[in-house]
Amino acid sequence: MRPRRRETPRSGAAATEARSTRYRNLVNPFEPVRIFTEEEVENIHLAAIGILERQGMRVLSPRGRAVLKAGGARVDEATHMVRMDRSMIDAAIAMIPAEANLIARNPARNCRVGGRHVVFAPVSGPPAVSEQSRKHAGTMEDYRDWVRLSQHFDVVHVLGQMVEPQDAPTEFRHLETTFAQLTLGDKVPYFYCRGDGQLEDNFAMLRIAYGIDEARFRSEPHCYTICNTNSPLQLDLPMTDGILKFAENGQLVIITPFTLAGAMAPITIAGALTLAHAEALFGITLAQLVRPGTPVMYGSFTSNVDMKSGSPAFGTPEYTKAAFGAGQLARRIGAPWRCSSATAANAPDAQATYESQMSLWGALLGGCHFVLHAAGWLEGGLTASVEKFILDVEMLQMFAELFQPVSASAEEIGIEAVNEVGPGGHFFAAAHTMQRYRDAFYTPLVSDWRNFGAWTDGGAKTATQRAGEVWRETLAAFQPPPMEPAVLEQLTAFVERRRREGGAPPVS
Amino acid sequence: MRPRRRETPRSGAAATEARSTRYRNLVNPFEPVRIFTEEEVENIHLAAIGILERQGMRVLSPRGRAVLKAGGARVDEATHMVRMDRSMIDAAIAMIPAEANLIARNPARNCRVGGRHVVFAPVSGPPAVSEQSRKHAGTMEDYRDWVRLSQHFDVVHVLGQMVEPQDAPTEFRHLETTFAQLTLGDKVPYFYCRGDGQLEDNFAMLRIAYGIDEARFRSEPHCYTICNTNSPLQLDLPMTDGILKFAENGQLVIITPFTLAGAMAPITIAGALTLAHAEALFGITLAQLVRPGTPVMYGSFTSNVDMKSGSPAFGTPEYTKAAFGAGQLARRIGAPWRCSSATAANAPDAQATYESQMSLWGALLGGCHFVLHAAGWLEGGLTASVEKFILDVEMLQMFAELFQPVSASAEEIGIEAVNEVGPGGHFFAAAHTMQRYRDAFYTPLVSDWRNFGAWTDGGAKTATQRAGEVWRETLAAFQPPPMEPAVLEQLTAFVERRRREGGAPPVS
Repeated sequence: MRPRRRETPRSGAAATEARSTRYRNLVNPFEPVRIFTEEEVENIHLAAIGILERQGMRVLSPRGRAVLKAGGARVDEATHMVRMDRSMIDAAIAMIPAEANLIARNPARNCRVGGRHVVFAPVSGPPAVSEQSRKHAGTMEDYRDWVRLSQHFDVVHVLGQMVEPQDAPTEFRHLETTFAQLTLGDKVPYFYCRGDGQLEDNFAMLRIAYGIDEARFRSEPHCYTICNTNSPLQLDLPMTDGILKFAENGQLVIITPFTLAGAMAPITIAGALTLAHAEALFGITLAQLVRPGTPVMYGSFTSNVDMKSGSPAFGTPEYTKAAFGAGQLARRIGAPWRCSSATAANAPDAQATYESQMSLWGALLGGCHFVLHAAGWLEGGLTASVEKFILDVEMLQMFAELFQPVSASAEEIGIEAVNEVGPGGHFFAAAHTMQRYRDAFYTPLVSDWRNFGAWTDGGAKTATQRAGEVWRETLAAFQPPPMEPAVLEQLTAFVERRRREGGAPPVS
Repeated sequence: MRPRRRETPRSGAAATEARSTRYRNLVNPFEPVRIFTEEEVENIHLAAIGILERQGMRVLSPRGRAVLKAGGARVDEATHMVRMDRSMIDAAIAMIPAEANLIARNPARNCRVGGRHVVFAPVSGPPAVSEQSRKHAGTMEDYRDWVRLSQHFDVVHVLGQMVEPQDAPTEFRHLETTFAQLTLGDKVPYFYCRGDGQLEDNFAMLRIAYGIDEARFRSEPHCYTICNTNSPLQLDLPMTDGILKFAENGQLVIITPFTLAGAMAPITIAGALTLAHAEALFGITLAQLVRPGTPVMYGSFTSNVDMKSGSPAFGTPEYTKAAFGAGQLARRIGAPWRCSSATAANAPDAQATYESQMSLWGALLGGCHFVLHAAGWLEGGLTASVEKFILDVEMLQMFAELFQPVSASAEEIGIEAVNEVGPGGHFFAAAHTMQRYRDAFYTPLVSDWRNFGAWTDGGAKTATQRAGEVWRETLAAFQPPPMEPAVLEQLTAFVERRRREGGAPPVS
């Protein structure tokens, strides 16, 4: 039997709602933690530039190589290797915007990227969904549910590609997912780079939904994408062309090498970060050549593998160290920095939680501006877990509260309350307490603080079980944000026309 | 069916063993996080002194009041209120040793307290034990098992009162628990303050086990205790007399106000910390009056309550903030600082994990020197959980690894490996990898990094289930540290004599 809402701590959901706009724009008050000295940061930076000067990267896109050559890079058309000198990289670094506004359909959901600002993005990329330990291939209905939940919680600041809807044909899939992002949500959408055809459709649909023309669209970033390098030292066709397309349109591109120390990168933290830094510098330089000053983000995703099995591991001590180090390198080049919340756990259990916490603290104490995979990631990114999404939202809300400033004014200290209560008394009824009790503390979404007896009477549910209930209740109550009927009609017509035209098959 | 050891990540236990001495003496490399400005720290410090000057604390021990009066405090014998001036407090602060050595029976287990050093202590105080979600009142056999496990893991640095053995009569209980600590372990023991009679027995037993005389015993701290104030503003008989006894003997006393904001303390973080600071200053001043320069620690345990139910909450955002703030206050007076890892969860689940992580990060990024309750705490401290102990050890080991220094030398970066591997290759066989793969990364105790299929084939066990297995396997393999037969005989004879004499009933 499910307890009535008001008997459970989750009845706090209503109270959370009342405070939730506090979670929309987060400012991190903490000084970044550092693991490297300034000299070590410089060593890594120069070693990375050395890699690009001597060895370079293999670029599989002819268009990408042409842009790089025109920008002064040395291109070997036989091997597709592209080398660039320090001066070229320095010129690109000088053009990176330190901050950017991400414009949402709903202006209240705009996000500031860079500075002290923090943006949380949901998990992206899993082919499967799991709920109550049952796993299945992702569908469009799953995708829509995940848009609904990502839209619902204010602490999730943008939308994403939370699960791969495998029942949607690949040439129409971008139309379906973009339609879902734009109609079920009003936060900033994420578009995959799977060829120019898909991106042109996505951008056109965004302009319809936002009601803006092309000039307005290109004047500020309204969407984001992740371009992963193929570490080591390779940039494939859709990723390169994605950088070109996003940069041409002034949209936010996050260049993220995925470097697993000991597998696709040197086995040391410093070595893996050096390779990642080289690849990020390369991608950022390409973007700045296309359009000087285009908004880019320095993405880091450095972890380690289990050297016995080769399995990737996440949220390890090495992962946390790499996050602290990556933050230093991003600041070295003045770029906003993207990191991740990750775990290799197969269930939304204690391991999933401590690995995600290690990731989150690494990111947030490292000074991260944009945390991808912040809600729902499980099983090394192969599953979007319903319960994990809610557990993650709880953890993100706790960080959002942690970021709220603390005062130590005489009024806040409340010496008169100490005088009033005296030795051995209690503060429940003190005036200082009564003035503040309503919103003095964070009201949790999942945490159950009842005593053992009450918790047992309530079914002895674990946090993971309660998280599943929160998911289902939230989904049941979901209302999409408003959209003008004419706009919805125009969007629907666009999708129908493009389907008739055969859509746009992905490029790989 | 339990998978064979070498098929599971937990086969890493052996590898961990080989590296485990790295966890014996931890040095925290991170700069402490701050939530208050220097001016705000000073405001709180002066407000706390103001409380002690104007209002004072109620001291229930006549002996304590006499010592305080002789030291210059204003004592009201009708109300038992004791007020002290700033000059008296300043004089005490000036005598606090910034660092201390805690001497163990085995010199390899000595602990340095203060500076950049970090000590992890097991949970203390729970009346019950839980295993596989079954809960029972603590017994002496449980207590011995918990000593064995606390002894086994190097990342647990001292012993403790991990569970209250309710089957041992209260007048003999200290003899039994001290005997267990001294014979099943060789780390620094924890003695409760339940009257002088018990402490004299404990100290005498320690001297037998260590083979030292009274002068040697008093020259350095060989054991520790926690003295909690009864917030607000009260110090009871056994706690006061415990401070006296420990200070007379130069043993480490940790003065810890337990201030739940909104219940026993003002509802604001700044207010709760101000009250806690006043009470800690009071206890520390008493200790320094007894024996100038005696080792003391500034204990903090500030959290909040659920204002709807009055239930205590731990590992909340407010808890983390309070930890950061308490660290600043401890540094203001130059005292080593004790904090805790805590949770209100009723099961060793995701909530228990994220609340403990929030506590641990608050403590360790706050610059904490001594983390009490670091392994095994559950249910607001009412249960010692077998599975939680192992999950906590995993988390502590991850922090221990995080503390290890990182290098960014040319050799560590390994540019030659990047050259060797080239675009699209892998680093598994690179010389740089082969030289380092054995101990490049942390080998986990509980985390399972296998893929979903292998994990499912292995029984789809959660981290909590695996933790229970690690507990049972570790216990089955436990060997006590060596002890001279003559010493064991003398200790046994002491306990037998004291039992014949009636033991020492607790004072309350």
